[in-house]
Amino acid sequence: MFELHPNLASGTRLLAQWELCQLRALPDPQLPWLVLVPQREGVLELFDLSPADQGRLIKEVNLAAQAIVQAFGPDKINLGALGNLTPQFHFHVIGRYKTDRGWPGPIWGVAATEDPAKADQILDQLTRHFLG
Amino acid sequence: MFELHPNLASGTRLLAQWELCQLRALPDPQLPWLVLVPQREGVLELFDLSPADQGRLIKEVNLAAQAIVQAFGPDKINLGALGNLTPQFHFHVIGRYKTDRGWPGPIWGVAATEDPAKADQILDQLTRHFLG
Repeated sequence: MFELHPNLASGTRLLAQWELCQLRALPDPQLPWLVLVPQREGVLELFDLSPADQGRLIKEVNLAAQAIVQAFGPDKINLGALGNLTPQFHFHVIGRYKTDRGWPGPIWGVAATEDPAKADQILDQLTRHFLG
Repeated sequence: MFELHPNLASGTRLLAQWELCQLRALPDPQLPWLVLVPQREGVLELFDLSPADQGRLIKEVNLAAQAIVQAFGPDKINLGALGNLTPQFHFHVIGRYKTDRGWPGPIWGVAATEDPAKADQILDQLTRHFLG
């Protein structure tokens, strides 16, 4: 049975249940940051998903990326699945800006100055977008 | 017509022509590092690929990840498509080790101490694997 890793449960917020993935948002004061978690047990790497589920994953990653572009118009989309700290397979879809704190490097591991009001504003915008 | 971005042409080495992608290796003294470049013109983001090509991409990413696991047995596979510096869409498939210079953070942008002999050894092993 699929069970969400505690790091993802505590660090991200559920936006939608898609066919394969839970679509979740990671609160960030600068960036729209989505995390897709395939609702399958014991998946650590891409190849632990069936070929059909891999097809579903890329479709859902694509939807998430298009949504970020429509809602936020960032300078670039960054995609990634690392899992070095949280082993349950999860796929990041992040809108990046040339003015953000990590540009042009990766954003993973680059701490933000806390600003809960800004983070809430981005989360609300994401929530509205996916609730339609 | 597809033309490889100069950064990818100079910074990576062609290993194979797959159905969608050029499979290329990025020389690194610590890590097996593959870069898949869809041979399509004008692709900057995932959604610039057709749905059929997105399906091909995820299959080829999966093949590359499995090959790294078989040939190198790393602790983790890291996947990513950033493009903040090189806009032509390309997808990284990297074998990570708990002992590598960037662990557990991302490896992009973490410079390695130069060691051409070690980098050549990994490239040779990758080449043998994909020609094998």
